Parts: sequence; structure tokens; C-alpha cells
Amino acid sequence: MSTGAPGSFADPRTHAGAGGDAGAGAVAGHWIDAVYRVRAAAAGIGARAQAIALEQSIEAPLAAVRDERVLREVVAQVGDIAPAGARDFDVTIRIAVETTGFEAGQLLNMLFGNTSLHDDVTLVDAVFPAEFAQGFGGPAFGIAGIRALTGAAGRPLTCSALKPQGLPSQELAKIARTFALAGIDVIKDDHGLADQAVAPFGQRVREVQRAVDEANRATGGHSVYAACLSGHYARMREQVAIAEDCGVRMFLVAPMIAGVAALAALAREANAPIIAHPALAGAARIAPPLLLGRLFRMFGADATIFPHAGGRFGYSGDVCNAIAAAAREPWHGLASTLPVPAGGMSVERVPEICAQFGADTMLLVGGSLLAARERLAERCRDFVTAVHGEAR
Amino acid sequence: MSTGAPGSFADPRTHAGAGGDAGAGAVAGHWIDAVYRVRAAAAGIGARAQAIALEQSIEAPLAAVRDERVLREVVAQVGDIAPAGARDFDVTIRIAVETTGFEAGQLLNMLFGNTSLHDDVTLVDAVFPAEFAQGFGGPAFGIAGIRALTGAAGRPLTCSALKPQGLPSQELAKIARTFALAGIDVIKDDHGLADQAVAPFGQRVREVQRAVDEANRATGGHSVYAACLSGHYARMREQVAIAEDCGVRMFLVAPMIAGVAALAALAREANAPIIAHPALAGAARIAPPLLLGRLFRMFGADATIFPHAGGRFGYSGDVCNAIAAAAREPWHGLASTLPVPAGGMSVERVPEICAQFGADTMLLVGGSLLAARERLAERCRDFVTAVHGEAR
Repeated sequence: MSTGAPGSFADPRTHAGAGGDAGAGAVAGHWIDAVYRVRAAAAGIGARAQAIALEQSIEAPLAAVRDERVLREVVAQVGDIAPAGARDFDVTIRIAVETTGFEAGQLLNMLFGNTSLHDDVTLVDAVFPAEFAQGFGGPAFGIAGIRALTGAAGRPLTCSALKPQGLPSQELAKIARTFALAGIDVIKDDHGLADQAVAPFGQRVREVQRAVDEANRATGGHSVYAACLSGHYARMREQVAIAEDCGVRMFLVAPMIAGVAALAALAREANAPIIAHPALAGAARIAPPLLLGRLFRMFGADATIFPHAGGRFGYSGDVCNAIAAAAREPWHGLASTLPVPAGGMSVERVPEICAQFGADTMLLVGGSLLAARERLAERCRDFVTAVHGEAR
Repeated sequence: MSTGAPGSFADPRTHAGAGGDAGAGAVAGHWIDAVYRVRAAAAGIGARAQAIALEQSIEAPLAAVRDERVLREVVAQVGDIAPAGARDFDVTIRIAVETTGFEAGQLLNMLFGNTSLHDDVTLVDAVFPAEFAQGFGGPAFGIAGIRALTGAAGRPLTCSALKPQGLPSQELAKIARTFALAGIDVIKDDHGLADQAVAPFGQRVREVQRAVDEANRATGGHSVYAACLSGHYARMREQVAIAEDCGVRMFLVAPMIAGVAALAALAREANAPIIAHPALAGAARIAPPLLLGRLFRMFGADATIFPHAGGRFGYSGDVCNAIAAAAREPWHGLASTLPVPAGGMSVERVPEICAQFGADTMLLVGGSLLAARERLAERCRDFVTAVHGEAR
């Protein structure tokens, strides 16, 4: 009996050549190609790759598998192993789609569940069969749906956030009214607004939606309020029902806190676009373009917020471009997801951000508007004017 | 107007001394003390700490806050800043409990939501007011409840996992039968068993529970099957109902995939102990003793699986001891959570593991038992005998 070497499932002797010839399991649409960047010495990368393949599929040594079908069609297979810089390798692991049960949480489990506990590995990419991605359905509204809802055509959209948390609902509603009067397209709850006592969810969404509605009537505009959902999925569904009764037509969800299964279900059920927030996304270990771009899109996010370069977070301009590309590029016929650069943006950066991302983008400027204090309305108008001006 | 320096909310000039004197907000039970290990130069750590305090509370520059109560009672405050090695500091941030809405997901959001996106910071600890932890309730069964259910008194418990995924339900049931006949206390689904076509949840739990029941009748034993729940919270509740109808009396949940809110709700509702699985816990960024030990315990995990030292994962023996301590030590009157060292354990290591963790532990040996193939039953008996022998 072999229990495998300590620290590894790897036993390359018994699995040689599996990556090269997938045999009967290699039917179209059978595999997801996941790419991991692995820090390893050249001499050990083959065994490390095989260990990842086992960890992310059957979670057992090959010696424990007696079933021929499991060996052929269920055990993940090692594909390409390519050097990536001096100390890393990019390892492609072919994961059987059947192991995901076609469910969002289980897909994340199969892509990175146990391997997230290994600090020598980052999940950098995943290539899905078309019918697999289509099975999830992607954004129900997407960029076109958000444009239709806000009446914003042919230009970048504008967005700001209701904060700070701790204010009572009426005070948040006043800020929302100022945003809406200035013509900001999407007014979202700060992702820290949950169901706190000082501004309970039901009271807050009623007050804020009313303020936005009144401002829209005054201006003839179409500002949309996006309410932040929190708690488990059943609680979120209750919140959706409460909010929709108040006329709310857009929602904010943090999928890595809520669980991606909740995002996937809400995207199919809520009759409103959903903005994904990156909280707890721990981007150092799953590549942001994959997680915030492609995966959140596949699970149904209509817009995806990401920390843009030059703000409070360390993402590079290239990473941000890659997130936007993953969100928007044609992909298996799914609707596009609206990229939302954020995280310390300012009105002064509007021309540069618009130049980088083009029209199919929503600019989110939050705290720096509120820092204008009594000149908030003026600063909001500057923001809107700057973005609209870029489209001319 | 100030929008703060690029890359930071920090503006220490306007918030000096906030950590030293919390003023009217400093009532007992008002604050959670979260500790972050931050990589920073000594000259910059004060500003970086203040930036974290703002990011993890109001997510806006202080200049944006006009409300006195928010400044005093809602904005997180910088506490101790202590050197931790040559390049790091341990920064204590006092987070207002009211910002959590007393909800598990929102608590995680306030502890590490946006800051998880900064790769210079790890969340290493959090100290909660007693009434805050008690509000979540902790494990409904805990170690005592799991002992009562399995009839395992005064010795470490044994656990193994049904795998590999890809086997049909009947084959998984046969393995479960072998485990139960050998007297293994807890027989859990592999965390990769979700609701796949080859072994659908309802069919699988019926077949496996029946096999375990039959074996228990034959031996007079009390082996318990723990079924793996997946999908969003509402789906998990359906699975609990299906499984309880089949007589299932224990469940496995991966809180970082399911969402911690789902764990917290299930712990209050399911009439069965819940084992937490660390999948997607990305332990490099939240200290494992905090996440797998204290937080999962507070949210209601009755047992917590962690990758033990010397197995397939890189956790040190000290980290594992700290996880076990956080799970078991007296804490705000909450029931203890059963520590479950796992991740590449073997029968040969039983004496050492028992010596390290003592009686209030469950040893999980999975793949290395299955690797015995046709001698699986014998190997299971060796496992059970070894653990029972350690208690004598």
C-alpha cells in the first residue's frame, strides 16, 4: 500500500502521460482548463502539478481509485506546464465539468477550494466550454440593460456611493437626492451598508428610493438606486422583495461574502441588474481578471466594481484593462458586464479613466465627492459634466 | 477640499489621538479589536494604520464626514501599533460593533472586506465583546454534542471521508458500510461531493445513511454520517430536510464557499452538528486560528477541519495548536468546537496526533485508508484500534 509521499498526492509513476492523451474522457465540453501559477523548482514541478490535479478533483492518492471511469473521466489531468519567469510555472489542469455539478459554489470549490490553502499557488485563468458558461447564463441585463434603465446612451456612466455608514436613513436619502439632482446615473449603497440599527434595510431603501424618485421627477432624469444586499441567500431574497416594493431597480452584492451561489441564483431571479462588489476577494490568490471579470460575469453580475490603478489599492493598469476585457469581450454569447473602476477615484481623473476604458464603463467616485461637504452638489455636477463631456 | 493622498484615506492630522481616547463611544462592548499584520516602513505605519481604520469602517476620507456621532462612534479607531519582526507591524484597529449589523457576512466584511484586496495586510486576530459573540450563539452541539451522538467518550474520535467523487451512490455506500463496520465514528462526504449527476444528493444520502444504519445494527455501534451541503442557503436548507428525512444527523459545510451567513443560520436551525471545511479559506491572508478556530466557532461550527502539519499543506504545528486552542478554550461561554486535524494524515501518525491534541479531537484519515483498496476494512480497523488504544 502506498499513501503517497508526505506533503503531496503526487505519484507520477502511476499516472504518466495522462496529460498527453485524455483517452475516452476527451470529449468536447468535458473539461475546464484551469491555469495555476506555481512557485516550484523545475525538478519538482511535474509532481507538484499532478498533486494539484488530484487535490482539485478526487482529493485522494491515485492508488485509492479502483474505478476505471473515475480514472479516465473524473480525475483531473495535467496539461501544459510552461515556465513563467525565473521561479514560477504556469500549469494547466483539466478539470472535469461533471465534478462541478454545474453549480457556482462547487465550481469555485473545484477550481481553488483546497488549493487556496497552499501559498505557492495562484489561480490565474480558467477556460470553460461554451455550453458550460451558457448553462450559468451570465448577466441577465448586462451593459445594454443598465443603459436602458438609466437612459445613458453612448457615453460612460456615472456612479457614486451613499456613505458614511452610521448616518440615519434620512441623511443618506439627502445625499442620494443631491446625487440624483446632479444627474449621477447610479447611486449605490456603500458596501458597508447592511442592515444596521441606525439605518435598517427596509427603512433605508424606502427613504433613499423616494428621494431619488423625487429628484428624477424634478429633473426629468433617470438616476437609479442600487441597494446593497447582505446576509444569507434567503435573507437577500426578502430584501429584494422589500426593495422592489419600494421601486428599487438595481442591487449590489459582494459575491465572495454572500457566496457565489447566491449571486448566481439572484441573477436568475431578481428582475433588476446586479452590481458585484469585490469585498473579501483576496485578489492576491485568484487573478482579478478571472474572478472579478469572467467568473462574476458567468454567475450573472451585470456590473463589476474593481479597485482601479492609482487609487487606494495596488492593481496595475494592465490588470484593470484585463478585468474590463474579461467583463466586456464577446464570450460564449453571454451579455457583457459593465466594468466599474473605483477605489479612490476623483473628478480630476475622469478624462484619463474615460480614455482608458471608453464608453462602456461606469465611473464610480465616492468619498472624494463627499469630501466637498457643503459643496457636494457642485462637485457632483462637475463629475457628471466631466463624464458627459468626454463623450462629445 | 481634500480627497486624501492617492493610495490612502490617511489623514493623521485630523484624527490624532483617536486611538488613545475613544471618548463617548468607548462604552463596554462597543468595539471589536481587530489586529492586522502590516508590511510597512516605520515612517509610514501611522498613516497606513489610519487608512485601514477608514477602509474598514466608513470607506471615505475623514473630510467627508460631517456627523459628530459617526466620527465618535462609527469610524474605526487606531489602537496599538507594535513592531512584529523586522519589516512588519501589528496594528490594532477598533471596529464599532454596530457596523456589523450583528450578521456574520457583514462582520467578515467589516473585518477584512476591502482590506483583503491589499496584499500588504493579513488579518491575524480579533477580540470580540462577550455579548457580541454570545449573540451569534456559537456551536449548538459542540464537542459534548458530537460525543453524545457518536457515543465516543473520553477518547479522540475517528473520521474518514467518502471518496473519490465520480463513484455512483451505491459504491460510496459500500465504502461507508466498510467504515461503519470498522467502527469509525464520523463518516463524512468528501467536500467535493456536491449534487453531481453520478451521485445526486438525495440518492446519495439515502444510500449512504442506509448502509451506515445497517452496519450500526450489525455492530451495535453509533457511526454517524455527515452529508456535504452545497449551493446557496435555500438549497442547503432543502438538502438538510431531504437528509434528515433519511435519518442523517450531521452535516459538512464549507463556510468560505457557502458564505458564513449560511453557516450561522444553519447552526441555529439544523437539528444536527455541523462540521466546517476550510475550502477556499485562502489561509495566507486571514490567520487560520482566527478564521477556522474562532470565527467558524462563533458562527456555529460544531467541528472544524484544518490541514494538519506534516500532511499535504504547509501549516506548522504551532498554527495547528493555535487553531485547536481557539476552537476549544473557554470563550465567552460558547460551546467548544471539535478540532479535526486532516489533509494527508495516516494511521501511522495516530499516536503523535493524539499526543498533540488530546482526547477532545477527531482524527480524519481519508485517502490513505482508501489506498489500501481490497484491504480497506482491515486498514479501517487498524485506524480505529490505534485511536482507541491511545485513550487507554
